Amino acid sequence: MKVLVINCGSSSLKYQLIDSDTEDVLAKGLVERIGIEGSVLTHRPAGKDKVVIETPMEDHNIAVKLVIDALVDKNHGVISDLSEIDAVGHRVVHGGEKFDKAVLIDKGVKKDIEELSALAPLHNPANLIGINACEKNMPGVPQAAVFDTAFHQTMPKRAYMYGLPYEYYEKYKVRRYGFHGTSHDYVSARAAELIGKDRKELRIVVCHLGNGASISAVKNGKCVDTSMGLTPLEGLIMGTRSGDLDPAILAYIGEKEGLSAAEVNTVLNKKSGILGLSGGVSSDFRDIAAAIDAGNEKAKTALETYNYRVAKYIASYAVAMQGIDVIAFTAGVGENNYDVRSAVCDHLAFMGVKVDKEKFKTHGEEVIASTKDSSITVMVVPTNEELAIARQTIALL
Amino acid sequence: MKVLVINCGSSSLKYQLIDSDTEDVLAKGLVERIGIEGSVLTHRPAGKDKVVIETPMEDHNIAVKLVIDALVDKNHGVISDLSEIDAVGHRVVHGGEKFDKAVLIDKGVKKDIEELSALAPLHNPANLIGINACEKNMPGVPQAAVFDTAFHQTMPKRAYMYGLPYEYYEKYKVRRYGFHGTSHDYVSARAAELIGKDRKELRIVVCHLGNGASISAVKNGKCVDTSMGLTPLEGLIMGTRSGDLDPAILAYIGEKEGLSAAEVNTVLNKKSGILGLSGGVSSDFRDIAAAIDAGNEKAKTALETYNYRVAKYIASYAVAMQGIDVIAFTAGVGENNYDVRSAVCDHLAFMGVKVDKEKFKTHGEEVIASTKDSSITVMVVPTNEELAIARQTIALL
Repeated sequence: MKVLVINCGSSSLKYQLIDSDTEDVLAKGLVERIGIEGSVLTHRPAGKDKVVIETPMEDHNIAVKLVIDALVDKNHGVISDLSEIDAVGHRVVHGGEKFDKAVLIDKGVKKDIEELSALAPLHNPANLIGINACEKNMPGVPQAAVFDTAFHQTMPKRAYMYGLPYEYYEKYKVRRYGFHGTSHDYVSARAAELIGKDRKELRIVVCHLGNGASISAVKNGKCVDTSMGLTPLEGLIMGTRSGDLDPAILAYIGEKEGLSAAEVNTVLNKKSGILGLSGGVSSDFRDIAAAIDAGNEKAKTALETYNYRVAKYIASYAVAMQGIDVIAFTAGVGENNYDVRSAVCDHLAFMGVKVDKEKFKTHGEEVIASTKDSSITVMVVPTNEELAIARQTIALL
Repeated sequence: MKVLVINCGSSSLKYQLIDSDTEDVLAKGLVERIGIEGSVLTHRPAGKDKVVIETPMEDHNIAVKLVIDALVDKNHGVISDLSEIDAVGHRVVHGGEKFDKAVLIDKGVKKDIEELSALAPLHNPANLIGINACEKNMPGVPQAAVFDTAFHQTMPKRAYMYGLPYEYYEKYKVRRYGFHGTSHDYVSARAAELIGKDRKELRIVVCHLGNGASISAVKNGKCVDTSMGLTPLEGLIMGTRSGDLDPAILAYIGEKEGLSAAEVNTVLNKKSGILGLSGGVSSDFRDIAAAIDAGNEKAKTALETYNYRVAKYIASYAVAMQGIDVIAFTAGVGENNYDVRSAVCDHLAFMGVKVDKEKFKTHGEEVIASTKDSSITVMVVPTNEELAIARQTIALL
């Protein structure tokens, strides 16, 4: 069967067409600047050259139509007819407490996603636009919603409640939700496979270190804690996000800089993290490494602070699971940055973590890097959220 | 020698007169409602009945004068003349990056404390008022400032920097400072004494669990990490303070409840923590225990969330020190609440922490409660910040 996986933003749309039998990606692509001057579709059919189509796209309906046209195109298409697409799987950011797994989309589900926009005002409305555009262009094709929060819904209350007035939870649903759930699920499952064990009998820490970054504790196949919270701002230091802060800092900065609460929020999301702490060098770890080589002390501080916090989170999740069997690194930084992985493992040496540094120097490959006498199995597992969404979509049919 | 220890708030003043040779408390007391209608001094001379003096006190000068009068009073006094007081030790909340130890107060120090008021606007100005009042009433007597932040100044940069634009550190000194430093110092030193070892060779976690609560990692006698931050709001769930939160929650609550940033800050400091999470039961753990016994589910959630977070912090500080030799509980909850201590240690069972539950059921006593085969020595060490301030004051003379 063939599944079209859609990740829709407010002015962008990423897609992959996946053959669920072979799990091959038949084509993938990205539409940018939807509804803005300079709209462009970049289509990458497997085994063929990429195609760039620049044409006005006033809304997501037109963008989806162009994607379908590209998929069935005589020259750069990969299917002969729209009817070959058996289902569409949508990444939806916030499923709140309502959704603890993927669901087939109907009117009720769309209403729920809309209501949950209060918790993810930038993402859920965009996800809904993508769903509506696909329904319009592919009537009758089953559509699934795969939520970024769903995998974390198994957390116990002690892990998801904040030290806030209880009424904020009751009235406004203020609690930890966690994100990147599809990735934490996929990587923890794959990690178990790689060592030939049942995930239901393992205690796994997944370090999803990308531009956004989160850590989760997956005990016996279920998430029991994770570092992102009500929003993706909490937890680790990220590319441009601050992660954990003294909450009193917000009012302090607001007053000093003359910023509103919303403006401070923007600074914490867009201008902080590795970018901010390095004094503006970059949110990209390759630039940070180059700056450190050139003697930039702030870049060094940024990287050391980042690594130290990752290691502290990992150690704290040993409490969540009463021990750790596996640590799995994934996403852009986790898959490609040996220096970060290595420094994190050095911080965990006291726990008996030992890695073969040569084996560990991989880029984007699955590898088990811990030595035989390491107390914890350490590995790199490239994530594949699109494949996970396709699998979950197929499972619903 | 005799040291008068002063802890001055904006409308209150706590004092102890300590004999530094015997380390006995000769008298202690509290002045409340200074500058407000209903001013009252409660004076407790050792071995005598307490005295309550209700009289108008328009400012701290008058309050200090009344304290001195009480100390030298024929009936309820404990010294015959003011000249017997050899020094005054003041608790000062914020020493910023300027003060990494106690100092004798001169004009320059007072100017520094005033400048640091930006970081502690509620506390430093009140501390200064107390210093000035003592200088006026006891001319020529040496006065020392003992800072709540000083002990934490040895933290490495990776532990004290936030994932924020670096310029906020340079321009506004936004960083982790930590508080309760006098207590963390005193308790870690006493913990080493209790097991007959040199603090310089130990890795100690001090859990200062009072109405305010903070944890520190003390490696070889120096603080290397602590849970409070720029202000005392960060870290553990406390009596009425939230501790760690997704920073995005502040704007979200502000919008939902129609509160300014300053008002949200007040909610997080005064109406959150155990009080808020229990649905308003109490900030006092005895009330929480009673509510749990009566079947209150929110109180149970509050306690479990509190305990879990304490345990996670302890585990994360194993990273800061590459292991833990001693865990010491102190302050109101830490000294008196067996249920909290016991639950925290249960969370750490995976690390090899084992306690003798009967030994552990103490109130306010020094006790080593871990079993001989425990991987970590667990103890209760009642804190004594006033004695620590007196000692540091004497050491400066």
